[in-house]
Amino acid sequence: MPVPVILDCDPGHDDAFNILLAAAHPAVELLAITTVAGNQTVEKTTLNARRVCSAAGIRGVPIAAGRDRPLHGPRRVAENIHGGSGLDGPGFGEGEPDVPQDPRDALTLIRDTLLAHPSPVTLVPTGPLTNVAAFLLAHPGLAARIERIVLMGGSTGRGNTTPAAEFNILCDPEAADIVLGSGLPVTMFGLDVTHQARATPEVVARIAALGTPLSRLCVELLTYFASTYREVYGLDAPPLHDPLTVAHLIDPSLVRLVRAAVRVELRGTYTRGATVVDLDGVTGLPAETEVGVELDADGFWDLIVEAVRVLGG
Amino acid sequence: MPVPVILDCDPGHDDAFNILLAAAHPAVELLAITTVAGNQTVEKTTLNARRVCSAAGIRGVPIAAGRDRPLHGPRRVAENIHGGSGLDGPGFGEGEPDVPQDPRDALTLIRDTLLAHPSPVTLVPTGPLTNVAAFLLAHPGLAARIERIVLMGGSTGRGNTTPAAEFNILCDPEAADIVLGSGLPVTMFGLDVTHQARATPEVVARIAALGTPLSRLCVELLTYFASTYREVYGLDAPPLHDPLTVAHLIDPSLVRLVRAAVRVELRGTYTRGATVVDLDGVTGLPAETEVGVELDADGFWDLIVEAVRVLGG
Amino acid sequence: MPVPVILDCDPGHDDAFNILLAAAHPAVELLAITTVAGNQTVEKTTLNARRVCSAAGIRGVPIAAGRDRPLHGPRRVAENIHGGSGLDGPGFGEGEPDVPQDPRDALTLIRDTLLAHPSPVTLVPTGPLTNVAAFLLAHPGLAARIERIVLMGGSTGRGNTTPAAEFNILCDPEAADIVLGSGLPVTMFGLDVTHQARATPEVVARIAALGTPLSRLCVELLTYFASTYREVYGLDAPPLHDPLTVAHLIDPSLVRLVRAAVRVELRGTYTRGATVVDLDGVTGLPAETEVGVELDADGFWDLIVEAVRVLGG
Amino acid sequence: MPVPVILDCDPGHDDAFNILLAAAHPAVELLAITTVAGNQTVEKTTLNARRVCSAAGIRGVPIAAGRDRPLHGPRRVAENIHGGSGLDGPGFGEGEPDVPQDPRDALTLIRDTLLAHPSPVTLVPTGPLTNVAAFLLAHPGLAARIERIVLMGGSTGRGNTTPAAEFNILCDPEAADIVLGSGLPVTMFGLDVTHQARATPEVVARIAALGTPLSRLCVELLTYFASTYREVYGLDAPPLHDPLTVAHLIDPSLVRLVRAAVRVELRGTYTRGATVVDLDGVTGLPAETEVGVELDADGFWDLIVEAVRVLGG
Repeated sequence: MPVPVILDCDPGHDDAFNILLAAAHPAVELLAITTVAGNQTVEKTTLNARRVCSAAGIRGVPIAAGRDRPLHGPRRVAENIHGGSGLDGPGFGEGEPDVPQDPRDALTLIRDTLLAHPSPVTLVPTGPLTNVAAFLLAHPGLAARIERIVLMGGSTGRGNTTPAAEFNILCDPEAADIVLGSGLPVTMFGLDVTHQARATPEVVARIAALGTPLSRLCVELLTYFASTYREVYGLDAPPLHDPLTVAHLIDPSLVRLVRAAVRVELRGTYTRGATVVDLDGVTGLPAETEVGVELDADGFWDLIVEAVRVLGG
Repeated sequence: MPVPVILDCDPGHDDAFNILLAAAHPAVELLAITTVAGNQTVEKTTLNARRVCSAAGIRGVPIAAGRDRPLHGPRRVAENIHGGSGLDGPGFGEGEPDVPQDPRDALTLIRDTLLAHPSPVTLVPTGPLTNVAAFLLAHPGLAARIERIVLMGGSTGRGNTTPAAEFNILCDPEAADIVLGSGLPVTMFGLDVTHQARATPEVVARIAALGTPLSRLCVELLTYFASTYREVYGLDAPPLHDPLTVAHLIDPSLVRLVRAAVRVELRGTYTRGATVVDLDGVTGLPAETEVGVELDADGFWDLIVEAVRVLGG
Repeated sequence: MPVPVILDCDPGHDDAFNILLAAAHPAVELLAITTVAGNQTVEKTTLNARRVCSAAGIRGVPIAAGRDRPLHGPRRVAENIHGGSGLDGPGFGEGEPDVPQDPRDALTLIRDTLLAHPSPVTLVPTGPLTNVAAFLLAHPGLAARIERIVLMGGSTGRGNTTPAAEFNILCDPEAADIVLGSGLPVTMFGLDVTHQARATPEVVARIAALGTPLSRLCVELLTYFASTYREVYGLDAPPLHDPLTVAHLIDPSLVRLVRAAVRVELRGTYTRGATVVDLDGVTGLPAETEVGVELDADGFWDLIVEAVRVLGG
Repeated sequence: MPVPVILDCDPGHDDAFNILLAAAHPAVELLAITTVAGNQTVEKTTLNARRVCSAAGIRGVPIAAGRDRPLHGPRRVAENIHGGSGLDGPGFGEGEPDVPQDPRDALTLIRDTLLAHPSPVTLVPTGPLTNVAAFLLAHPGLAARIERIVLMGGSTGRGNTTPAAEFNILCDPEAADIVLGSGLPVTMFGLDVTHQARATPEVVARIAALGTPLSRLCVELLTYFASTYREVYGLDAPPLHDPLTVAHLIDPSLVRLVRAAVRVELRGTYTRGATVVDLDGVTGLPAETEVGVELDADGFWDLIVEAVRVLGG
């Protein structure tokens, strides 16, 4: 039985690969895609989700747009990493992608999807947690239809957008606090583990060798992503954060998890948006969150390459 | 044309009088009552709303229960002011009130009411702003169907639950921040103006003189309310905060309003939940909120007494 | 036996009157004046203290300069209230005042004064509390030589520089926290009580009627002060905050005091620098600080007018 | 010319080794030792400093006691790591150590030492920064006599006392903020680099092989330290944090430094006391602090073993 999944994302280069992985692998059933402001505005992330599905031949998965700003405070985007379109690099052309946008808003699509599916569904957020938090607030009675939440965000150590905070959490710390405090099972893949998924030249070469139009698109995405990571962070190979979530659903042995208390700092002058992860058990708070700490990078990249191969017909 | 209104409340002694006022006066059309945790748990405030409507012969107004805790953090109640039932004083008896609870949850009732009404509706929250904030997050597309928000909460000066914070705002500061930052027109009646509505012995005597069962109930409510205000705050006559909202809708001349920037302090060690009201224009923030600053107390009490008279058949 | 006093101030129009009062009245022995950055930079406030003493014929009181910025964060001044010199209005001329600046720094002068005086000395800070806090940190062993601290600062309600914070406390909240938490007896005169000391036209006329050079200077000071208070706060008559401190030492019956817990908000987004005064005893914190709440304004102004008369030979 | 040094410390097992290193090596001239509350109360850390000097034959270095609590808030100690005495492990006996306590307080000793030395002196704090901050506040005029500040504290990543904060900084965040913002050159050795100085069994064996009474004492210290680190953090070999400071003075090539902006979080709910180190230059703040990032552990331990050998006659 495949794991039924709703992706809530802000594509975004690494989100794009997560869509491919979720659509390609038989262990996952991709029920819906919802989009949120994050790497770019929600208009752009929604268009990007449609472009990725169009290019990869992913049909029949509804795509609905969600919130265009966080619960509190101003919106930020990651144009320095993902470019002005949110998915810079490939030439997608000016035309409309052939995969349409669902007329429902994201919260309605999530609600309808949960109600229609016979068993609880896993939510996989890989952008700011605005949609998910708003959904939990709007529909507390549907929490029982959510199996668990498997998210990319946060860090057990340093951040990437401020010294203390990772981008997805910093974009909407209150939403992250609502999700982590919801009582639902949460699995978090933060920077410490996603930085073990580096798209090295060897990885790019494996994808290029597939020789399909989709593999060319993927190479263009990774090439652009590498260029901004090199410029901003001085990294040789960019980490492909988001797909750790779906990879974990496909093969739980790929990432070693520990349980820890996780809190979101909402109030600090320099630390707002930090995820405070009590790995040493020094706070006395209950260890309620699963936190990814170690990745089998080879196994991870095998999944990614295989997904591009399967879809790139 | 009466003003169409949804009351979102946590009865609560002063909420009870606001229900009476909204139901009794022809200038207001009371479309629905939703309840929220605040003065007591949402189970109790919902029961209290039904009890008040039953006792006052208010029929046909749906009453639906909303959120039982704030968006973030722990719940607090005001048992020291409103008693263990949230509406201590009168003997309501053990039986179920004859006014039923609507099977919908509060957010669904608000949505259905907004969609069904031909013109935009005024929201009147007199408890913590949890329901209203959750509604705005859940249904951003329905904001245009809200005429304005007229709320009791906050203060331009000192608080009543901490030295800096008023009860309704302190219960859910993030919800208050969402409502005040929603872009909808907001009118705020805080402690500085509601403390001008004191239920003096003369007022109580006027209500008692009506000689109806409802007037007796009202006297019992005010007598209990006076006893806790005397004990906790050393006040001789308790302020009847919440009905300033509906009184303002009935007769805008009753309360003098000024425009000011209002912010909710979310982060202070000693000031969390404070409403920071820039009456002097020192912050440079735009003056977007209407703030009540002066009450015609005689005119206010005339409305209250008349409402008890009209309903107390 | 007069009360031995060290004034720590940032003249400043109202500070100037406090110097006059302390020097003129036989119930107070003015041992020293130390200056701090506040209404203006410490260079200017030091010069202003010397100008006031020169003009009023106050001789033999050493004047030493203290800290030029707060313990943490940037310095702010009150040029909009006190002008570019910190004491705008009178024409003091370009020359050096004949009262010299003591070569010692403020902390050394305080130390020497405490050690030289046979009995404990009262500290009277009427500016930011930077000097006093630094002194307590530098010389914890001399705390026993301080009788008490009688300060102007804070508020039991609204602020004057932000909606929540009064100027002196906002300038150096951490210093205020150190002083209030020092364990020494502290008496605080905040805005709620100092705003009862309004320099009305009648008051100004009484001072003018003295017909001395000093009275003319005082009228010029009050006239300028009135003009900025009118412009900034729309007040008809400016409150003469600082002299409540020395007036209280001269005649304790002039101000009604209550005891309350007082905390300084160090962390709020909108409330940093607020004094949180628990007048209702809702926090459970011990009521360790004396707080002025009501002023006998007539008695206060009698003292001020008499001081100007006595000095204005 | 040896580097003239004042150690400000809270011994503490790792502080003890730093005293040994500073006293033993000819490249350093140890002028004075001041103590502060930290690993234990200041009474205990002062006694411990005297015990270490007595046991190691260090004579003629004045030892003075400083602050017994932080600038703000409550005191904490590290009894779980350093034991009830602050230096558990060796049997020091009940008698008084023969090295006396200087009658001056720490601030006076620092002042006198700075004034007496012909060239600027390096301050080496390895405990909470209370003394140093208080000194800078008390004697701003002596800042020019301080060459630089080389401290152990903070972290570029995770903390050790909370998930976000390192012990020394957490004990007195405001003091750390004052020191880092003082304008003096500061070099910081935080947990990320001090955790590279592990007292492995091989290291302990080298010290044991010296066969002197002092080497036996050192082995007892390291054995106790290893036991608490194993219990609290699950580490196999404890990091000897503090001596990186003096080791760096002796041989600057031992630790690789980078320049970065460093801020102390004073306000967070979960992150108070964190050092926010902008290694990636994302904040736009000037990179004013030197931060140790990589240790030559072999060279470090060579210095430690040699110090024990030299002193252990």
